[in-house]
This record gives sequence, structure tokens and C-alpha cells, in this order.
Amino acid sequence: VARLIRLGVAGLGRMGAIHAENVTAHVGGVELAGVVDTVEPVAREVGERLSVPWSTDLADLLADPEIDAIVVAGPTATHAAMVEKAAAAGKHVLCEKPLSLDHGQSVRAIEVARGAGIKLQIGLQRRFDPDWAAAFDRISRGEIGDVHLFRASLRDPAAPPEQYLRTSGGLFVDASIHLLDVARWLIDEVEEVTAFGSARSDPLLAEIGDVDTAVACLRFRNGALGVIDTSRVAAYGAESCAEVMGSRATLRLAHDRRTNVQWRTPGRASYELVADFAEQYARAYLLELQAFVAAIRDDAEPAVTGEDALAACVLAQACTRSLHAGHPVRLTVCDGAFGVDYAIDEEPVR
Amino acid sequence: VARLIRLGVAGLGRMGAIHAENVTAHVGGVELAGVVDTVEPVAREVGERLSVPWSTDLADLLADPEIDAIVVAGPTATHAAMVEKAAAAGKHVLCEKPLSLDHGQSVRAIEVARGAGIKLQIGLQRRFDPDWAAAFDRISRGEIGDVHLFRASLRDPAAPPEQYLRTSGGLFVDASIHLLDVARWLIDEVEEVTAFGSARSDPLLAEIGDVDTAVACLRFRNGALGVIDTSRVAAYGAESCAEVMGSRATLRLAHDRRTNVQWRTPGRASYELVADFAEQYARAYLLELQAFVAAIRDDAEPAVTGEDALAACVLAQACTRSLHAGHPVRLTVCDGAFGVDYAIDEEPVR
Amino acid sequence: VARLIRLGVAGLGRMGAIHAENVTAHVGGVELAGVVDTVEPVAREVGERLSVPWSTDLADLLADPEIDAIVVAGPTATHAAMVEKAAAAGKHVLCEKPLSLDHGQSVRAIEVARGAGIKLQIGLQRRFDPDWAAAFDRISRGEIGDVHLFRASLRDPAAPPEQYLRTSGGLFVDASIHLLDVARWLIDEVEEVTAFGSARSDPLLAEIGDVDTAVACLRFRNGALGVIDTSRVAAYGAESCAEVMGSRATLRLAHDRRTNVQWRTPGRASYELVADFAEQYARAYLLELQAFVAAIRDDAEPAVTGEDALAACVLAQACTRSLHAGHPVRLTVCDGAFGVDYAIDEEPVR
Amino acid sequence: VARLIRLGVAGLGRMGAIHAENVTAHVGGVELAGVVDTVEPVAREVGERLSVPWSTDLADLLADPEIDAIVVAGPTATHAAMVEKAAAAGKHVLCEKPLSLDHGQSVRAIEVARGAGIKLQIGLQRRFDPDWAAAFDRISRGEIGDVHLFRASLRDPAAPPEQYLRTSGGLFVDASIHLLDVARWLIDEVEEVTAFGSARSDPLLAEIGDVDTAVACLRFRNGALGVIDTSRVAAYGAESCAEVMGSRATLRLAHDRRTNVQWRTPGRASYELVADFAEQYARAYLLELQAFVAAIRDDAEPAVTGEDALAACVLAQACTRSLHAGHPVRLTVCDGAFGVDYAIDEEPVR
Repeated sequence: VARLIRLGVAGLGRMGAIHAENVTAHVGGVELAGVVDTVEPVAREVGERLSVPWSTDLADLLADPEIDAIVVAGPTATHAAMVEKAAAAGKHVLCEKPLSLDHGQSVRAIEVARGAGIKLQIGLQRRFDPDWAAAFDRISRGEIGDVHLFRASLRDPAAPPEQYLRTSGGLFVDASIHLLDVARWLIDEVEEVTAFGSARSDPLLAEIGDVDTAVACLRFRNGALGVIDTSRVAAYGAESCAEVMGSRATLRLAHDRRTNVQWRTPGRASYELVADFAEQYARAYLLELQAFVAAIRDDAEPAVTGEDALAACVLAQACTRSLHAGHPVRLTVCDGAFGVDYAIDEEPVR
Repeated sequence: VARLIRLGVAGLGRMGAIHAENVTAHVGGVELAGVVDTVEPVAREVGERLSVPWSTDLADLLADPEIDAIVVAGPTATHAAMVEKAAAAGKHVLCEKPLSLDHGQSVRAIEVARGAGIKLQIGLQRRFDPDWAAAFDRISRGEIGDVHLFRASLRDPAAPPEQYLRTSGGLFVDASIHLLDVARWLIDEVEEVTAFGSARSDPLLAEIGDVDTAVACLRFRNGALGVIDTSRVAAYGAESCAEVMGSRATLRLAHDRRTNVQWRTPGRASYELVADFAEQYARAYLLELQAFVAAIRDDAEPAVTGEDALAACVLAQACTRSLHAGHPVRLTVCDGAFGVDYAIDEEPVR
Repeated sequence: VARLIRLGVAGLGRMGAIHAENVTAHVGGVELAGVVDTVEPVAREVGERLSVPWSTDLADLLADPEIDAIVVAGPTATHAAMVEKAAAAGKHVLCEKPLSLDHGQSVRAIEVARGAGIKLQIGLQRRFDPDWAAAFDRISRGEIGDVHLFRASLRDPAAPPEQYLRTSGGLFVDASIHLLDVARWLIDEVEEVTAFGSARSDPLLAEIGDVDTAVACLRFRNGALGVIDTSRVAAYGAESCAEVMGSRATLRLAHDRRTNVQWRTPGRASYELVADFAEQYARAYLLELQAFVAAIRDDAEPAVTGEDALAACVLAQACTRSLHAGHPVRLTVCDGAFGVDYAIDEEPVR
Repeated sequence: VARLIRLGVAGLGRMGAIHAENVTAHVGGVELAGVVDTVEPVAREVGERLSVPWSTDLADLLADPEIDAIVVAGPTATHAAMVEKAAAAGKHVLCEKPLSLDHGQSVRAIEVARGAGIKLQIGLQRRFDPDWAAAFDRISRGEIGDVHLFRASLRDPAAPPEQYLRTSGGLFVDASIHLLDVARWLIDEVEEVTAFGSARSDPLLAEIGDVDTAVACLRFRNGALGVIDTSRVAAYGAESCAEVMGSRATLRLAHDRRTNVQWRTPGRASYELVADFAEQYARAYLLELQAFVAAIRDDAEPAVTGEDALAACVLAQACTRSLHAGHPVRLTVCDGAFGVDYAIDEEPVR
């Protein structure tokens, strides 16, 4: 019988709890070896519920020689340091996005992980979602032809709490980053972004320089245009949809149904919508975890690398800059040692 | 029995022929009194096919005291002069969009029509389409709440012939103008546009300064954001769709099916798509004509005025300017004598 | 200019009023010459509203030499006699279904119309609906291959009033007849029917031997199976859908949307449903009228003949017999002088 | 850490291999302890691929005290005996449907399992599918009101091989049984069935008295009507859909998409269809396995019992009898010791 991969989960907020639950009940070939959260009652609750050891100190997981890998899912500000510690302990890491809001910190975490020879996979989960993956396959096989336009939307039903908003890095870094990642993955590198935003749901947003609704126009290296919109106040639920228009065919991806059940009452047919990201990407999270385990077992490069996370983050930050500057922001695509890097041109476009 | 309204159609290209056929066979209470085209074989063919008098000279229609109204459907460059002549002869006019690519010429045609007391209705047919009208009704009743985002697409399967392209005024004036009109109608006046475009299907486009794919970002007076995309190379067919996100509800309009028949073959379910604008808006063209006839009968202001056409045209020209200038273009909304007028700010935004 | 076809409408209930309105405002090349209803206030209201002569006596329309045709739309019991009178006066007839609940009466009306050389078209309007017509075209071209299964549903939101129910001939003759007609048209003649029904919405139905929900299984001459269900208590609206499975492809027809606008509120996406038959087949009624006018102009056999109406009615009556007998009922298909006729086998199948 | 449940899989055809793979890679908290197939190369291939012990003799699994439960997935004829042997060894059983084509054999297997105190769950997987489960929830909460009509379809793309067909028990027992099970689960017990069928794809079917297309009409104890159709020659793929019409609302379940990606080429929009049952119910098979494991852990009655399987099988056999007899077949619902039992009335209905 194949050896189980033993995982620990550090950071037991919404995503950490999802990963811990998935390791325990929904993915085969793995075992949850322990959970950590700096808030003791949180750590205890999850540990006891899932019948695994718990702790408030990551060091306890890192010291366990039986643990193969750590899922890093705490607040963004803790990601880079945790990745470095785990790497130093020789543990593979599945880290929630972004690595860090600070470019230098992200680069260092990537370098430390590379140096330690561990697998570092980032939680940009759309890449594992069956719909997005199907779109990628068809585009990769050239079935679209030359891409003319990439159009995508990301919707969340309601803004997160104030404390989260104040440290999220803004709408583009916190949310649009997912679409910027798929834009790079599906289409090409991005050479220019122009962003527009508005904040109409809550005065807090204006105060902290953030927006609840945004549009970003992209120019891709291959000449294609792109436009992505993001809303934190969609009200109806969580949704992510996309269109890729090409010279040979046009593809649309849209997944918003909770079930395939339609309901008919006088004058009206309706269906239930997916409520939030956890429901929307339930299957992607499982497949992400399976891919991570497979990368460990097969000693293969993870499907979403630290460099991917860094590139998406730089694009998101360029959108933020354009939003505030009121003009397009150009990017220079650099070849890094292990992947693409981006530099934001400081000069205005014209 | 109510008196029939007698119409003449001037300009027998695609749209003129559609209107002439609709008057003859699909709208009650009207009679086609004659058709005109400067190309004699065209005029003769349509006249004989529909069993009505034909001519190469608009004056023949204008001289007929039994004719109530003229449908102006020839090349754009002829619209304004024809409107003025018809007005001078006391004939009501249903004129295809735009009135003129020249702002002054448009203004004069509107003034002449106002002065003559005739009805001047412009062929921005989405306003009569049952889907767009249903969207308008719900938005007007406040069911959306505050609008956060307006998102719309216009797709044509293939670029028109070179001769048409060279005089069309460009993608925004020729095609996007329809979405700019509905943007004003559904949401609010527009205060800023930023346009992006690319031309990848045909070198001719670059030569004449036009594009085949474009995105325009809008800022509305009420604070909402807008984004519209237009493609002349969608390949799959003609389509026009929209989304209006608001604080209370989100509305989506999408009509692309030729029929409500689905076809299943091994591994695949498919449906036929609407092929072109004529099929897409077949019903809207009928309702447009009925509304025009009703405005004449009831001596009422037409639902789409010359001022509406002018405003949409100025917005489209502002998009063209932004496309070429590479920065946002601001607009000043003016109250005109009979409706809104727009002035493009010559200064760059920042 | 082509001569207008002049029509009179006799019987100004729901369908008669629709036809009169369509002749007046929505179909070109025709003129409403007068309206008749035995109830004077009804006749007067419609006549005055549409600005045409009105009367309580069909003879007034028949005496008018300028009238080409009569639309017969009163109670079923009056159809056959009106057809015969109109035929005797040399007027073409568009008659609502069914011709008569009595087989002999139907046969005689058909014979009288044939003898008089007038066009007799029956209002089985699905045959003119663009969706059903598209299905017919594909099946006719052999794209389905051998038909394995025909499956169709007819739904009405609520049962008609008691007086109507008592004289309707029952659910199969009043409603399912439409699906039985399309079954013959799309697939083949029917050789056996077995019907099931239940009446749960209203005790009146049991009292008069009628049902509100029914299923009928069909065996076609070509070996295909069929199943149709009919409900008068669907609550959500009016709907008619179908599936044709074949050896090469499967086709589905489903039209239930009032508009192509979707509405999203927290947790739910919905669209409005078609409310009743008038809305459901608004376009089919126009096309039916145009086809009738074209048959008159072109001196052509109407697309839906009296023989078609008779055949569908016999099939519906066979379903009623099966429902009450509790066993299958077989039919013998006869070649009549101008079309198919059916005879119900009196013997139980086994 | 919670103890892993250790499972063996006996019978490594299509379903057995799916279960073995799911235990290994897609369900947490379980471990595949061994696999058995009487065909040695099959057993070896699966065992080696999944790195678990393999054998050609079920006794090897039964003798292992560390094994908690057996998944029985071989040919139907072997099910009942395997259940009895596993029960005798104190192993819980998840058994593919049906228990047996022989009523007495099924009853005995159920009794042996009850006597041994083991969990016996049957693989009627729709009950675990999220769509069917959502339908069940709404119906159970009374949101439908009184049920008027249950309508369901089951489609397979192509008939199984001759050898399978010859021992399958016929279309109703092999395929429709799934819809008969959900009919009982969602609506009520069934008191009468009338079946119709045709065999047009392959002469073999007529030879063995089977059909490729069938319709069965049901009368439920609560007065509702039902109609289910089954096709083995749908060509386009595997599908299962249903409608439940009620006095308060109507529900529709339809799941046929492989992904949520739409593809647009000139004149056509299409999406990929689910190819077969394994893809169609991939998630249901996981949830079925999790439910089985939960029933073991929690010492709870499985969600689908042997009695459920027996009842669905009797209904399917009643359909077969009706098909051959050409008349309705009535059923008497009996209360058994642990659930419902059915008896087929031998007398014709009338």
C-alpha cells in the first residue's frame, strides 16, 4: 500500500479550515498530521473536531519528522515568513495567495524555497477548476486561433470586514489577482494595464483608497486586448466568468449554479446561485490539494509556482497604480531564473 | 376604417429593403407608396418586387401629396440632406443612424426638422427591442437600485466591405454607437470615455486608422462605471448582450438563439446562432416602424429623437479620439433646446 | 400596388380579438373589413376600438362582396355551421380548432368547403411557430434519422372557467389536440393510443369526467414510440416543449421565456415565464394569418387543412376513450379523398 | 487521529474499478485493503496499479480481520451470494444494484445481512447525487405541494455488449430501475405500471425479448401520475433528467454538461455532453462511499437499504411484465419487517 502523505495546516481561518477538512475527509492518500493557529481556541476547536494534534506554534509542525508538507493559510502578512521557515525545515508548502504584498519579500521566499529544494505551490485555485482547465486545454490546442479579446468577471456578494479590507492590499491585489493570473495562463503576458474603479457601497473604501467595483483593460504581448471587471458588491453571490474570442472560435466559461435544479412558480423560473468562493471552488480546492500531493510524490514542479503568484501580484499592483494615477501603466516582462518576472515602468505611458 | 399611413423608402440598401418589406408585409395600417434609390436597377427591382412605384429621385416621393413620411436609409453622407428636404416638403422622417458624421450638419438637420414641425425618429432600434425595453422598464422602476456597473457587448460576424469601412466613421461611430445610445438610455449621461482597440484581422484597418476589436470604459454622471466591447470579427454571428449591476439586483440581457431548438449529436449539444443584425433585430425593426407610425398618428414626440442620435454620435467620436490619443476623454453634458447635447473637452484629462 | 385582402372576424372572444388586432396592426397587405359577435356590446366595443363596421350577424359580413375571407373564432359548436355558410358565400375561411366535436359534422364542413372551392385553413398554430417549423425542417431533411421517441408537453397555468370546461370536449380534445397534430406532422400517423389521467385540482373535473393532468402513450406507424403529457394546472405559466430522439440526432424544442432578460437577486437567478397561449404563440398567430393570406393570393392549399384538424380530433377522442376504458385504443389510418382519415377500432386491443 | 476504515473491493469491472480508485485517491478516512476478481489478470492489474494486495478469491478479503467492509461490484448473478458470505464474515457491504433478479434470493440476502447486524447499502447512486438530493429536500419540505406529475428520463449512449444484454434482466431491470427507485424516494409508492417499448437498433433485442426504448406510466399511491422513459440508444451521451409538477411549484432537474464551457463557431454555440454513467455520477459515487463509511462509523442505517433495492427491482419486473402482456400491471404495497415490499397482482387490471 502506497505511503500516505502527511500534511499540517497552519492558519485556520476560512481557507485553512477548508484545507484541513479536505485532507481529512475528501482526499485519499493523505493524512492530516496536525493543525496550527496562533489563536488557541481556534486551533483547539479544529484539532479536536478533526481528531488531530493542534498547536499555536508552527514550530511544532516543523519539528515533526513525519510531516511532509505544510499548508500555509493564515493572514497574508505571515505567508512569506512561514514559507521560509517551512522550507528551512524541509517541508513542502502549499501557500495561499499572495506570497506577500512586498515584491522583495516574495522574491526572497521563492529563492529560499528553490534553494531548499522544496515544492512551493500557490493557491490560485482556478487553475485546478475543471472549467478553467477545459478552457486552457482548448486554447492550448490552438482551437481558438489568434486571440482577439479576453473578457472576465469576478464577483463577490459582499465586502469583507473592515479589518480585512484595511490589510488586503486593495481590490486588485485581493480579488482581481485571480483573473490576472488566468489572463497570463490562458492568453499571454500583459504589457499594459489601465484601471478604473468606484466605491459606492461604503464610505470606508474611499477612506482607505480602495474601491468596490473596478474595470481593468489589458494589452497582451501577443496583441490581444483584455478587460476584466471585479465587484465586491454583486449581492447575488460569487461568480467568475470569462470569454475568449479568437479568430477561429469563441469560448465562454460561466459557472454560477448551486445545483442543476430549476424551480418554477407562477410567472417565474429560477435557480439557486453559488453563495461564496468556498462553494464556487469546492472541487478546485480538492484538485489543487491532489495536484500538490502528486507534485510531492512525483517530485515534479507544481502547476502554480511562486513566480506565477509574484507575476499576478505585480500585475494587480500595476492596476492599483493605474487606478490612482488615472493613466495606463506599462510593464516590462523579464525572464527570471525560474520564470517570468515583471517590472512596472515608472514613467506615464505618454 | 382608420386611414392608412403612406410611406416612401429612400435608399434601398440592406436596411432600406428591410423597411420596405416590413411596410408591405409585416406592419398593419401602413402602405408603401413608393421607393427610391439613385441606382436605377436597384430601385426598379425593389419597386417591381413589391408592386409599388419606383424612382431614382427623392423629389418624386416628396412631390406626392399622398405620402405622409419618408424612411431615409441610404449612405450616411446623404442622411442630413434628405432629412432637410423631407422636412421642407412636410414629410415625417424615420432616418437610419447616424444623422451625420459632422456635428454641425446633424444639429442643422435637427433644427430644420423641429422648425418644420415634422416627426424625426432615428433608427437606433434597440430601444424598440422587447428585451432591451424590458430591461429599461425594470431599471426605470428602480428595481436595480444604484447602478454600479454597466457592461455590454456588440458582435458582428465579419467586417463590412472596404468601401463601407472607408466611410463608416470607424468602429465606434458605426457599431459601438448602439451601445453608447443604450448606455445613455438605461443608465445616465456619460462624462468620460477611455477607449482601447486592436486591428488584427485585416491590414486595411490599420491603414485607415480603424480597429476590429475595441473596449471603451465609461464614467457615468451618476457615478456608475461602464465597459463596452465591440467586435467586427466575432465569426460566430451577431450578438448584443448587456449586464447592469446594481445595489439591489443585477440584470442580464442576452439574445443569441436563432430558434429555441437544441440539437444533440454524440458528445455535443448545440443551438443555432443569430447570423446578422437583420435577423437579430427583425422584431425591433417592426416595432420601430409601428412606433414611428404611432408617433405620426398621435402627434407625439418620437421615442428616439435627433438629439439622441447626436449625443450617441458625439460619445462615439469621443471614443475614437481616446483610442488615438491614448488617454481618457472628458465630456461636458449641455442642456440643449430640445434635449441633451455633448461637448468633448479638448484638454487631456490629466 | 398589390390589392389588400379584406377579412372579417366572426366570434370576438380571446382568439377572435387577437386575430382582429393582428389584421389591423401587425400584418401588412390585409385590411379588417368588419367584425361580428352575437353579443352586441362585444361586437360594438371591438368594432369601435378598431374603427371598423361591426354587427351581431355573420350574414352582414357574408353579404359584403368586398370581403375575401372570414376568420371563424367563436365557440366550437358554431364552427362547422359558420364554415359552411362562409363557403356558400364564397368566402375563404381561417377556422379555429376543432372544426367540430362531431365527426360527421366535421366531414361535412370539409366537403362543403372543398365543393365551394374556398381555402379552409385550421388554427393549429404550432405549425407556423418558428421553433416548431425549424424542428419540422430538420426532421424532414432526415437529420434525425429513424425516430425512436417523440416526447412532448403542453402546459396551461390554470383551468378555464366551468362553462368552458363543460363544453370543451375534455382535456385531450381541447388541449392535447395540439400535440397530437404536431405528432402526426413531425413523426407519422398514429396507430395506437393509451391514455392516463388524474383530476386533483377541482372536484368539478371528476363530475364532468374530465382530468387536469394526463399522459398519452402513442405508437406511430413507423414504429416510433410517443409520449405526451398535458396539464391544465401547471401554475407557472403556459409552455409547450418537445423532444424527438432519433438514430442520428436528438432534437429539443423548449420556449418558455417571456424575454431574454435574467434577474439576479441574493442567492437566485430568475427569468420571467410566458404567461398564456396568447403570449406564447403571438408570432405564430401572425405567421398563421400571413400564410392564410398567401394561400388566398397564390391559390394554394393551406398548410393546415380541415382533414388535419379532423385527424387530430379523432386521435384526441381516441385518447379520451382509452382514458375511460383503461386500455389501449387502436386506430386505422384510411386514405381519404383529400387526406388522411382515422377510424377508431371499437374492439379492445387484447 | 481517527481510525481509517479499511475496504476491499470484489469484482473489478467498470464499477468495481471506480470504487477502488475512489477509495484510494478521492475519499479521505478510508484505505483500500485489497481487491478481488475471479479473472486473475484483472485482479493483478488493479492491485498493482493501486499498490494493494490482490486475489481471485473473495475468501482472502473475508479472512482479513483488519477489513471492515466489502464493496460488491461483480456480475449481478454473484451479488446475493457475496453479500451473504460477507455478512457471515461480519463485513459490512456496499453492493451494486440489483441484489438479485430473483425475489427470493434478494429477500434471503437482506435477511442474512439483517441477521448478521452488518450494514448493507445498495448502489442506487442517484440518492447521493447533489442535484437529486436537492430535489428531494425541496419536495420533502412540502415546497411542491401536492404532486401532480413525475416525469423522468434515463439515457445511455449505446447498448451494452451482447453478453451483458443477455443476462441484464432487460431494460427496465437494468436501467429504468434507477428512475423507479427515485420515483419511490421522491414521490410515493407505485400502485400500477403500464409499459411500452420498441427495439429498433439491433435485431438481437427482439430475439432476447428486450427493447432499446421504453416508456412506463406510473400511478402513485398518493394519486399522482408518473411517466418515465428510458433509452439505450440516445447516441448523444448519458443523461438523467426529471420534472416534478405540483400544486405549488414545479421542479426540474437536468444535468448533462461535461463542463461549464461553451464553444462558439460560425452559426453555432455548443457544449460538451457527459459521455457515460461514470462521468455523470462521478461525484455521486464519492458521496455514496462517504455515506457508507459514515453509516459504519456512526452505526446508522444506510441511506439505501436492501429493501429499497428489492422494491425498485419488483417495480422494474412489473414493467417488464406489462410490456409483454400489453396491459397495466397492478402492485400491492406490503409493509415488510424492515421496509416496504411489493407484490405483483397476477390478474390483468380489467
